[in-house]
This record gives sequence, structure tokens and C-alpha cells, in this order.
Amino acid sequence: MRAVVIGDGGSLELRELPTPEPGPGQARVRVRACGVNRADLLQRRGLYPAPPDAPADVPGLEIAGEVDAVGSGTTDVRVGDRVHGVVSGGGYGEYVVVHARTLAPIPSVGGVPLGFVEAAAVPEAFVTAYDAMVVQGGLAAGEVALVHAAGSGVGTAAVQIARAIGARAIGTARSQEKLDRAAALGLGAGIVAEASPDGASVTFAARVRELSEGRGADLALDLVGGAYVPESLAALADRGRLVLVGLMGGAKASVDLGLVLRRRLRVFGTVLRSRPLEEKILAGQLLARNIAPLVAEAKLLPVVDRVFSLAQAAEAHDLMASNASFGKIVLTVD
Amino acid sequence: MRAVVIGDGGSLELRELPTPEPGPGQARVRVRACGVNRADLLQRRGLYPAPPDAPADVPGLEIAGEVDAVGSGTTDVRVGDRVHGVVSGGGYGEYVVVHARTLAPIPSVGGVPLGFVEAAAVPEAFVTAYDAMVVQGGLAAGEVALVHAAGSGVGTAAVQIARAIGARAIGTARSQEKLDRAAALGLGAGIVAEASPDGASVTFAARVRELSEGRGADLALDLVGGAYVPESLAALADRGRLVLVGLMGGAKASVDLGLVLRRRLRVFGTVLRSRPLEEKILAGQLLARNIAPLVAEAKLLPVVDRVFSLAQAAEAHDLMASNASFGKIVLTVD
Repeated sequence: MRAVVIGDGGSLELRELPTPEPGPGQARVRVRACGVNRADLLQRRGLYPAPPDAPADVPGLEIAGEVDAVGSGTTDVRVGDRVHGVVSGGGYGEYVVVHARTLAPIPSVGGVPLGFVEAAAVPEAFVTAYDAMVVQGGLAAGEVALVHAAGSGVGTAAVQIARAIGARAIGTARSQEKLDRAAALGLGAGIVAEASPDGASVTFAARVRELSEGRGADLALDLVGGAYVPESLAALADRGRLVLVGLMGGAKASVDLGLVLRRRLRVFGTVLRSRPLEEKILAGQLLARNIAPLVAEAKLLPVVDRVFSLAQAAEAHDLMASNASFGKIVLTVD
Repeated sequence: MRAVVIGDGGSLELRELPTPEPGPGQARVRVRACGVNRADLLQRRGLYPAPPDAPADVPGLEIAGEVDAVGSGTTDVRVGDRVHGVVSGGGYGEYVVVHARTLAPIPSVGGVPLGFVEAAAVPEAFVTAYDAMVVQGGLAAGEVALVHAAGSGVGTAAVQIARAIGARAIGTARSQEKLDRAAALGLGAGIVAEASPDGASVTFAARVRELSEGRGADLALDLVGGAYVPESLAALADRGRLVLVGLMGGAKASVDLGLVLRRRLRVFGTVLRSRPLEEKILAGQLLARNIAPLVAEAKLLPVVDRVFSLAQAAEAHDLMASNASFGKIVLTVD
């Protein structure tokens, strides 16, 4: 099969690899589209190694395609099923082998099945945002969610999930244009995050409090880390939760523990990729049970910025690194 | 009534104050004993102001005594009931008025009611430790709890609660002698915490991992804050929880967010005093429903280091500040 492999110096090379065979309980998916994630860029730089259950050098954390073969004892999917899901790696290839229970059927909207490109734009962003905000963070109707990087893949998903469950989203982004586009997805209010030139500080907490009648945010979904963490804590309401899902802005933070104690704040770190199989299956079930019905009702829309072919993976990465995209970047695998 | 009042410059003065009257739903307690807490020392220094529902200048966060009068519509307690509980302040006085539902009956051990001194040593320490570890932190049988300041009031309570629920406690303290005494309460293993002379760093994480067969602690109960926070995070197992209940060691911490994300750690800040009435009532209910039965079975023992009279409150504070005490210091109010 053809796959994009990380070569020397982090180059991306289209190569021939052996087609993987499904084992017991597993399914092989003929990948038709694969979402691009910032973690793929980190993996190229050696900063986000693949877990043991994934190919070491083929990036790709979410796929859509057709089941092409199943292993012994696999009953949850059948050959020909149109599926999507989060994978531990290997999405940038024609075939990927996963446990069948990590896959979810591709939902239909108004009776029309989602295309592979749109279906590949759903798993990582929507599962990450739903799991972080609702399952772990306990975001509830009537609450205020602060969503950083509101124009990113996870950010655009988070804004829609907040609206779908009856919460209000306040978003930050680096440009007004992204905030305007996020408003169409349900963003209640936007803040252009003002960072210091060295990135060591950023300002938005006072504005969040203004925009929430002094209450502060009940939950902050943070993909940025670094200086965003102390500022997000300052933006939280009493008993607010900060769910940290990424570290684009740095891995160190100086935290005011007095604030954490006094306001009884909670900080959760979470990541999908390193989870054990049983939790990856739960993520797949979440996709099928919680996200698909909202997609079917058009309450959650996959947001695709641009589509590239597998051979253009490096260009897709350049676009992601530029921070110019809105929503997801997807590779098609013909 | 007589009460200890915080005077100019943080002095403690025995004065005459008006006896408070109970309002609707409230009870007045004739205080017989009052536990001393580190927060009382902070309040003297102006660092821990009383909430609006407490006397501004009379410290004291937990009491034992007899109900002496009730307000209109108060049905949960009767005059003459022997009660104890967490209060928002005012414990260093002959009378305190609280909502009746925040009080719990003083339990008996083997049919013999706990004395007022022992009963006053229970509420703050055991409610704080149980709420932080079990209710918020979800500590479960089979898990490993790391308890800092294992010889403190909260620490000695936490060690016993861990044992009572089937978890294993690893404790830190500044002296081997305190660890030896905590071992008699159920501490599984002890570590003398080695702090740098300036307090900016402390070392125990590697030893916690050794003592837990490489697993790390599933929960850390931290009364210290400061440099203990990054080291506690390093001592946690995957999905470990750090519950922060005090800041004796400082209110700033530099946190490795990569660790928080990768191991999916959770940090909870919590404090009893500033909670609204409904949560203070829940704390009282926890005392009656969860702690009293374990006290009655002698699975949880109040640990009283030394007893002082109300007039000796300043001496009691000096002992607490010296860090030489083990367990609780209690004032009697004759």
C-alpha cells in the first residue's frame, strides 16, 4: 500500500509499505480521507512519538473509509461498512488496522451520508472537545465555556458543542476574522487574544469577566498552554474547570495556587492518543452515541478549510503551521 | 460572653462580647471545646479574612458543645443536644450561632460518647480530608494516597481515612518521629521530605515511585503548596489527582504542563471556609453520615496533641507555628 512516511529530518515521503492484516477483533479500513492534526507536525519533529499500537513513522490520527477486511471474532463491523474514527496513528496510508469497536458508522445528515472528507474531519476534533468539555469538564446548560483557538479544528468543534448542549461559548483567536467565522458556528462572543511579543503573557481574563456579567467562565478549553494557563485560571468562575488539551504555546506555566484554592478551581490534563484500548473504544462509542446524532440533526457541522491529496501532505502541514486555516485540513487517499 | 478577639497587631485578647441570638433555622451552641487550625494563625495576620456569615475578629473554625437555644423553625437539633461541626468562624468564644443543619451529633465509641475535646478535634480535619480525598478526589480501595504533612491535623485524619477505605497511604513529614507516630495510625510508608534551605525545592517523587512499585500515587493530598506542587505532580500515577487544601509552603508554583497532559493529571483546589451555606450543610452531613460511623467503629481516632484553655490561645498558636505538634491542638471553653 502507499503511505506517507516520516523520513530523515522530518521529511514526508510517499512510499510503498506492506498492507497490514487485521488480527482477532480488528478491522482493516481502506482509508479514503484522513484529518490533519497539529500532533502530526509534532510527530515529524520527533516530539510526539507514536504509541506501541501504531505504526512508528506513518502519521494520521483520524480516518474515514470503508471496512475492507476483518479479523477472526470481529462482529462489530462488516466488510463494506462506511466508518470513521480516531486511530493511534497510520492514517496517512491506504490501509489502517484498528480494533473494530473503536470505529463508528459515518452518520447521515437528512438521510444523506456524510462524505469521506467531512467524516474524516469529525473524530479527533469532536471527540476531543466533547470528552474534554462535557465528559471530563462536566459542562452543563446555562454555563459559560471559554474556548481558546476558536478557529482551530478542536475550537470550531467546541463552539458548536457548547451551543448544542445549551452552554454559551466565549472564544479567543488571534484574528477578528476567525472570530467572525466562529460566530456563524454559534460563538456567543469573541476576544482577540493580545499576546506579548515574546509570548510570555496574554490578556483576556478581564474581558471574559465583562462578557459574562462578572461571573467568569465555568470551563476553559485550552489548546494553547503556556501563558494561556494562568490567564485562563484568572478568567474562571468559582469552581471553574480548566481542561488542557494541547500545548501549542508552551509546556511551562507559573500558577497562582492561592487563586486555585480560593476559587476551588480544577485543572485537568487530557490527551487521546496515549490512552489504552478500552478508553479508545470509549472514544469510538462517544463518536457513535453522542456526536453522530448531533451531526445527523445538523447541530454539529464538520468544518473543512482545505483538502489536499496524500502526496500533498507537506503542503497541508505548511498550511496548518501558518495558523491561517479555519477548522480542519483533510487529506484524501485515492 | 467571653471570646478571644484578634486585636491590634494580631494580638489575641479575651474580651466580653454580646451573646449572639439564633435566627430562623439556626442554633446557638455553648462551645465547650474548639479546634485550632493553621487558618486561625493566618487570620491573625490578616491573610484569611472571615466570610460575611462569621464574626470578623473571633477565630475558630470547628467546635464541640451543647445546643443552648434554637431559632424559629429549627427542627434538626434540640436544646441540650451534644453536637460538633465546622463553623465559619467564632469558635474561640462561649457561644456560636450556626445553621442547625451544619451540626452533627457527637458520636459514641463503644457506647461511650466522645468527650468535647476529642469531638472538637474531628470536624475540620476529617471533613477536609474525606471531602478532598474521597468525595472530590475519588480515592478508592486499592489506590495509593500520598499525604503531605502526615503529622498535621488533616494529615493524621487523611492517613486514617485512607486505611479505612482500603487505600494505602504514603506520607511525608519533616521528621522521622512524626512518621513513626503516623505509622501507628495506618501510614503504610513514610518519607522525610528533603527541602532545599530556601524552600524552593523539595524531593520525594522518586521515593514515592519506589514505594509504590513504580506506579506512583493515585492521589496526593497537599497542605503545603509551593514547591510541593510540581514534585507531587511528578509523584503521581497516570490519571492521578492532586488535591490542594493548603498553602503553608507558598502560593506560587511552576508547573510542567507536558506532564499534566501526558499523564492526564488533575489538580483540584479546595477550601471549606468560603463555601456557601448549602455546601457547609453538606459538610455537616458528611460528618454525620460518613465520618461518625467510622469514629464509632474506632476506625478513625481523633488525635489530640495538647489542650489549652481559651485564655492560653496565644500559647496554642505558638505551638502550632512551631510545627512541633502531632495531630490537633484544642482549646477548652469553660
